[in-house]
Amino acid sequence: MIASARPDDGPLAIICGGGSFPFVVADAVARRGRPVMLFAIRGWADPAAVARYKHCWAGLGQFGRFRRLARAAGCREVVIIGTMLRPKLTQLHPDLVTLRYLPRISRLLRGGDDHLLSGVARIFEENGFTLLGAHEVAPEILIPEGTLGRHRPSERDLADVARGLALIGVMGPFDIGQAVVVADNYVLAVEAAEGTDRMLERVADLRRVRRLPFTGKIGVLVKGVKPGQDRRLDLPSIGARTVEAAAAAGLAGIAVEAEGAITADLADFVRAADAAGLFVVGVRADSPVRGQP
Amino acid sequence: MIASARPDDGPLAIICGGGSFPFVVADAVARRGRPVMLFAIRGWADPAAVARYKHCWAGLGQFGRFRRLARAAGCREVVIIGTMLRPKLTQLHPDLVTLRYLPRISRLLRGGDDHLLSGVARIFEENGFTLLGAHEVAPEILIPEGTLGRHRPSERDLADVARGLALIGVMGPFDIGQAVVVADNYVLAVEAAEGTDRMLERVADLRRVRRLPFTGKIGVLVKGVKPGQDRRLDLPSIGARTVEAAAAAGLAGIAVEAEGAITADLADFVRAADAAGLFVVGVRADSPVRGQP
Repeated sequence: MIASARPDDGPLAIICGGGSFPFVVADAVARRGRPVMLFAIRGWADPAAVARYKHCWAGLGQFGRFRRLARAAGCREVVIIGTMLRPKLTQLHPDLVTLRYLPRISRLLRGGDDHLLSGVARIFEENGFTLLGAHEVAPEILIPEGTLGRHRPSERDLADVARGLALIGVMGPFDIGQAVVVADNYVLAVEAAEGTDRMLERVADLRRVRRLPFTGKIGVLVKGVKPGQDRRLDLPSIGARTVEAAAAAGLAGIAVEAEGAITADLADFVRAADAAGLFVVGVRADSPVRGQP
Repeated sequence: MIASARPDDGPLAIICGGGSFPFVVADAVARRGRPVMLFAIRGWADPAAVARYKHCWAGLGQFGRFRRLARAAGCREVVIIGTMLRPKLTQLHPDLVTLRYLPRISRLLRGGDDHLLSGVARIFEENGFTLLGAHEVAPEILIPEGTLGRHRPSERDLADVARGLALIGVMGPFDIGQAVVVADNYVLAVEAAEGTDRMLERVADLRRVRRLPFTGKIGVLVKGVKPGQDRRLDLPSIGARTVEAAAAAGLAGIAVEAEGAITADLADFVRAADAAGLFVVGVRADSPVRGQP
């Protein structure tokens, strides 16, 4: 992990997508005494929140504008954080600098998220910027190891967690599968392009129409990091809303790869799980049982 | 493949779930001169269609009734075919013979479909019945190899097919993943407990809300057989309705593992694909490019 308070490096550039993460990170960095400069992505970043920081706005296709303003502000390190869905090429509205990268970006858009993100990271680095993970500058957003709330996983739950982590492992080379749902050794759902919330909705639907031979709280949402994933970008995120969706799906708990997922407010996340009667554990992919207390 | 016309074996017992497959199989076997005896599963088999054959009704939990009637009819070979969702233990209403197997069945219900089905097969065999695959007695229901309709897959489509088959391959040990959707090298959806139709609906939804950076007909539904799957049971099935769902999802075509999936009416299936502008190929998991003409 890179030390996060190095004022010599100049202000930290934070490229802000949607949601509250960009501001959680900005606050954490500012608390450590390092100035931040927000590059708010038009259409994604929350204008009201952005206004509280030194900032400027840019479109997704305005890499030239970003490069000029970031250099002028003395930023050399960059964090990209927050919701941004993969754009269509026709939605990019590229500026002149971005235009030069268009053939590369077009190739990057053909392929999984990792492929796209690591390609984008390379473009930043070729332009003299160092890309950092949000968790490197704000380690408090990482899910720690161990049982995090009041409820504890059973032996059966831990077996489901191990199976889920193993499945996420083999799917790694296919650039999918940050999350699966396993109940009593039965894989109920695998996440691909739809996202975790929709996958959990699906499990809730399946249980509602009684296609599943389970009753009572059973099953685990397992969220991991794909092997080989660039952790500076797109670490899975989790929060109180995930707890709500997991509870609606009738699950017994949530297992997250320790230091492999981020949450905007750990205390809030754990409080929600406690209230919903779900366990939450941070586990290591190589030794899931260590998630047990 | 076992020869299908051996009248010495007595009538073929066909345990009938829902849908038209049981009757397609019964007709194919009868055409070959072998008598059939239908064991219609209450709640699943279509009463009007069942009435056309020599038959009796039984509940899912009435293995004792089946054993007695099948032996009395001189049946030694059994085919299980048609839709049946995995029951809850409390829905089984076991007869006395089934009751003896309840602890085993309870264990079988904990785990994936393969686990359940191969366990059920073993129970039939311990009782002196030989379980056959529907495709062994009615090979005409198998999807053959090659381009089956008027439309042909592009190079990009064939690359998507190869990726899909590889993914199904690695997921095999997890007893899931008979189908995936891959578009331009990007895995859009993985089927687990929800079934192929729901997975395709999800892809259609994702495209409708523009979460996907694709326009036009793109992507392939790849349906395969899990490595190690007992092909006598639960070969994936496909038909005109699958074509409809794939077309609604904006896909370019459908690839099915040759002789690894069944269809009630191949001509009807291919006609639907031709009309919808989708290609249909039967491919070998070990050499997908042979699916190309």
